[in-house]
Amino acid sequence: MLSRPVKWEKEKSEYGPELRLFRVRFDWLINPRTGSSEQMTILEGPDSANVVAITPAREMVFVRQFRVGIGQYTLELPGGIIEQEEDKRTGAARELREETGYGGSDWTYLGKVASNPVFMDSYVHHFLLRHAQITSTQQLDSGEEVEVVLLQMEEVEKRWRQGGFLHPHTVTALQLFFQQQRNSF
Amino acid sequence: MLSRPVKWEKEKSEYGPELRLFRVRFDWLINPRTGSSEQMTILEGPDSANVVAITPAREMVFVRQFRVGIGQYTLELPGGIIEQEEDKRTGAARELREETGYGGSDWTYLGKVASNPVFMDSYVHHFLLRHAQITSTQQLDSGEEVEVVLLQMEEVEKRWRQGGFLHPHTVTALQLFFQQQRNSF
Repeated sequence: MLSRPVKWEKEKSEYGPELRLFRVRFDWLINPRTGSSEQMTILEGPDSANVVAITPAREMVFVRQFRVGIGQYTLELPGGIIEQEEDKRTGAARELREETGYGGSDWTYLGKVASNPVFMDSYVHHFLLRHAQITSTQQLDSGEEVEVVLLQMEEVEKRWRQGGFLHPHTVTALQLFFQQQRNSF
Repeated sequence: MLSRPVKWEKEKSEYGPELRLFRVRFDWLINPRTGSSEQMTILEGPDSANVVAITPAREMVFVRQFRVGIGQYTLELPGGIIEQEEDKRTGAARELREETGYGGSDWTYLGKVASNPVFMDSYVHHFLLRHAQITSTQQLDSGEEVEVVLLQMEEVEKRWRQGGFLHPHTVTALQLFFQQQRNSF
């Protein structure tokens, strides 16, 4: 066992095939424990954001959509990829507006997690929007089909505590909300 | 908005380049909202498992390792990929043993999340091991360098509440533990 972190040197780097969501990069790193060169796969992609949006009636705004990875419909917090020219909050607000039609001005940054630190270079930023209200209509991409679902905060908390949400980034956003902000509602 | 889920038909499916961690599949699905055909990227891979392992001294077993995705060291729960011939718990126990040398017999299944339902077909299974103790030595792959770190349960909970863990699957496992099992320790 190592007593503290040692830097892994990058031996070389190479790009793999272009996917739709990611740019695939292979890195060869020298393992400081063994000295051997190891090929690692990294999926490069933009950061994303999701939003805990709460209406004046203490409802949370969720989206139900078909997730092709697991081949089923999920209930998730609204969110998506932050565009290159956007700051995080602008991207979060745009994704919320496009997916649900909800908007507002009372934003709080809750925190972040890595998308998946093992092989992805991006982060997911979690935001809270208080006093969310309908400000526009849905504007969906051709690849999207999104149903807006309002759930009472207590119902969300119960479901979250029971492990009822499948998307890890929905779970982590709710965790930060219920730990940090719950008492202010 | 749709009143309830409608099945997306699969138009065709095609395999992309073989990566090291995944098999890349492209699916073309017909969006029931628009009727248009959409190309989707799916990364096929095996399920994985991670473990909340607790010693008799109320310490949790963590691993510190370099995560090439985000290019930094993280503190995570031990875990890894479940091999094809293993059941989930056998895989969880093997990964715990190989990464940390800890083992035991008092296992509980905590629940699961999708790895990432947007583009991955796999799940992460969360396990609890009570009365964890050192039963063997670390057995690391050539691509691994893992430092075992023991943290007091209260310290873990504090850090978790503050959003101090970067790996989403560590956060979701801890959530199920602190929601379901905390009172029994």
